[in-house]
Formats: sequence, structure tokens, C-alpha cells
Amino acid sequence: MFLGKVVGTLVATRKEASLDGLKFLVVRRLTVENEEESGYVVAADAVGAGIGEVVMVATGSSARQTRLTDKRPCDAVIMAIVDTWEVNGEEKYRKSESS
Amino acid sequence: MFLGKVVGTLVATRKEASLDGLKFLVVRRLTVENEEESGYVVAADAVGAGIGEVVMVATGSSARQTRLTDKRPCDAVIMAIVDTWEVNGEEKYRKSESS
Amino acid sequence: MFLGKVVGTLVATRKEASLDGLKFLVVRRLTVENEEESGYVVAADAVGAGIGEVVMVATGSSARQTRLTDKRPCDAVIMAIVDTWEVNGEEKYRKSESS
Amino acid sequence: MFLGKVVGTLVATRKEASLDGLKFLVVRRLTVENEEESGYVVAADAVGAGIGEVVMVATGSSARQTRLTDKRPCDAVIMAIVDTWEVNGEEKYRKSESS
Amino acid sequence: MFLGKVVGTLVATRKEASLDGLKFLVVRRLTVENEEESGYVVAADAVGAGIGEVVMVATGSSARQTRLTDKRPCDAVIMAIVDTWEVNGEEKYRKSESS
Repeated sequence: MFLGKVVGTLVATRKEASLDGLKFLVVRRLTVENEEESGYVVAADAVGAGIGEVVMVATGSSARQTRLTDKRPCDAVIMAIVDTWEVNGEEKYRKSESS
Repeated sequence: MFLGKVVGTLVATRKEASLDGLKFLVVRRLTVENEEESGYVVAADAVGAGIGEVVMVATGSSARQTRLTDKRPCDAVIMAIVDTWEVNGEEKYRKSESS
Repeated sequence: MFLGKVVGTLVATRKEASLDGLKFLVVRRLTVENEEESGYVVAADAVGAGIGEVVMVATGSSARQTRLTDKRPCDAVIMAIVDTWEVNGEEKYRKSESS
Repeated sequence: MFLGKVVGTLVATRKEASLDGLKFLVVRRLTVENEEESGYVVAADAVGAGIGEVVMVATGSSARQTRLTDKRPCDAVIMAIVDTWEVNGEEKYRKSESS
Repeated sequence: MFLGKVVGTLVATRKEASLDGLKFLVVRRLTVENEEESGYVVAADAVGAGIGEVVMVATGSSARQTRLTDKRPCDAVIMAIVDTWEVNGEEKYRKSESS
């Protein structure tokens, strides 16, 4: 999985019928130091993530292992909202209480 | 999924028999800011996309989760036509009414 | 799928038994402008491609969705020979009649 | 598989229900010379790895081939703790006895 | 598949139980011109490859399509030992008779 920040939303009305009801979010990749990268992915949201939240994204066939994405043409899913992570004993991110 | 712009068409008469009837389009990758990149993919079209349209592409085994691509040697599929997306509250793309 | 040019052949006598009879070709990646890149892949040939031909290559589990590659440890397959493709209305490649 | 060093931990309370009980670790990629790279992955831990240990990570659908990750939206798993590796007859890494 | 040279061995005693008996080798990527690259992969050996041999590596779910790797958390497998390959009519590699 990689770490990303939800930065945007996307609307697509004409799509594979099986995708109806899925919410797609634009997720920018984060370095392990919590810096935004230029890379991004559009991911289905399986956990009710919101703009600005830091999330974990699973890709490939693993992205279909949720009730919402099962058997759908979806190759990236937000499967967790991150509370905190640390590297070498140093906290790199902590979800604010208000978010 | 990644965002792409349909920029071209491709004809291949000699191919795996299971691919008969599939339409292949050349899709150039877009940055999250809606700028064309040099990278591209040839994708099967599952939604009737046209030249110039902005689309979402799913890759890998997820590209086979449509009626058209099921069990076929196809690793990229256009599974949605994008109407609009925004990043950090700013609209990056909106499909023109005429297209 | 990506576009590639068949540039070479490969012989491997000691291999997984299930691979017997598969023909492996060296395929160099092409840009969307039909320029050779340094990247390459060794792909199983499912369509009888020859040296110099421009082909489409499917990778990952999709490479196993042909009769020849089914259930084999093969992650890239030539599944079509390209006749022509165009980008932004400009023809980038056309298979010569003699080839 | 690639070689990595466990450098951190991650907490995510809001996640796909099937992920409950999985431990996620931050793993930095290592070169074959045992140098840390900037790339990283967040992987599920299937072997009880600890901070500072050098591990092997499997990705994609192969990451779900453990009892802990089966059918879960998880695309990276630590499936082995490395004792030692050598390249061209030279030892590049040996797990210290105390770790 | 990509071409690689077996450059090293790896020992891992603590691992997923299903991996017992698998031999892991360090494989450095080769360019199509038979030059070593910095990239590498740790692959399971399905064909009895030895140090210095040039091999083909299959990745992803295709790496599990051998008797040794079936249903195991393994995403790269050596599935063939290369005898020779040529590009544009020029031989780039030939296995020496003594190896």
C-alpha cells in the first residue's frame, strides 16, 4: 500500500454500470516524510474518506477485495484512513482531532 | 485508475480471436493538473469514448471486469468518461457541453 | 497494452515444462510517436508475429488469457499485430504491404 | 520480491473491516548493496517482523497468499525476515545475533 | 518477462510456512544489450538456476503458475534459463558450454 492525501473529487456519469454508487477520489501520493508528490491515483472510496485526510491505497486485484469494489473494473481503493505513522521513532503524521 | 485523454485509434486485424469486436483507443496520460504527459496506454473501450474525451483507465486484472473484456488478454480498459474533477477546491477539467 | 516492435528472438531449453512450445520474442517499447525506447520485454507470441512487426503486448495476469499461455508462468503476451495507429488525426504507423 | 528495512509503524483505526488485526509496517526499499532508497511501501506483517529488521516483501495478488491477508484489500506483505544475502560472493547483509 | 543475471543468494529462516523449500536468488536486471542494470529482484527458483546464469523472470500472479510457487506469497519466479538471444540479427548473449 502507499500513503496518500485525498485532494479532490471526480464526477463521471457515463461509466461501466457496475460502478454505479462508487465514489471516486483523487489521491496524491505522499513520501514517507509526509510530503506531497506529483504522482496521483483516482481511487474508489471504501471507508468514507474526506478531502484532506491521509489514507492508505491498495492497488491491483487487491483493490477489488472490498464489498464495494468486488468484481468491478477498479484498480485502486482507499481501504484505511491513517491516524498516525512514524519512521525511525519520529512521528511523521498525526490526524488532527478536528478532521 | 489514472486520468487520460483519448488521442487516437488503432487497427489490428491479426489478433487473438477473443479480441474480435473490441475497440482499442490510444490514451495519453494526464497529470492531476490536466496536462498531457508523454506516457500512454492502448486501452479497450468499454463505454463508447470518443477522440478528445477525458477518461478513467483501469489496468491489470481489473481491466477484465467488464462484459466486453472478461477472460480476454486485455490489461487496460476505459471504464468511465470524466465529466469534471477538482483538486484543492479548484476545477481542473469540465467536459464541454458540445463534446 | 503498450506498443512494441519485435526486434529479436530468444532460446531457452531449460524451463518450466508448461512453457514447452511457446515462442518467446524480444519486444522493444515504442513511444506513441513510433520511436523505439530503451525499455523491452520478452513476450510469448500468441499471434505468429515476426521480426520487425509492430505489436500490442498485454502484461500481468491478462497475459495468461490466451490458449497458449493459460496457467503458464508467463507475464507478457503479444496478442495483436498492429496494422496502423493514428494520434491527433496523424498516422504514426502503417504496416507495409510486403511485411 | 524486493528487499526492505522495517523503519516504522502505522495506525489506522477506520478501515475495511476485514483488515482488523493486521499489523502494518513502513518498509523502506534497499538496493542490492543494502543501501536505503527513498521508495517505501506500507506492508502487512505476516511473520512478526520488528523495527530495523531486513525483510522480503511480496506485492500484488501474491501479497494475499498468506492466512492473514487472504481475501483482504492488501497489496504488500512481509513474508520473510532475511538472515543474510550475498552478491558476487560478497556478503551484503547479515542479521545481527542480538536483533 | 525480463532478462536477468543470477548474482547472489539469500537466506531467510523465519518466513511464511508455505515458502519452506523454496530457493531464493538475487537477480540483477539486464538491458536488451546484455548490460547489468542497478535494478534487481529476489526471485524463487523453479528451474535450478546457478550463480552467473542468465535467466527469464516472470512477475506478479504469473510467478505462482509453477508447481513450486503455487498459492505461495511469491511475486517473482525464474522460469527459464536463457541459452541465447539476439536483437536485430546480432547475438547479444550465448550461454557458455562450460556453465
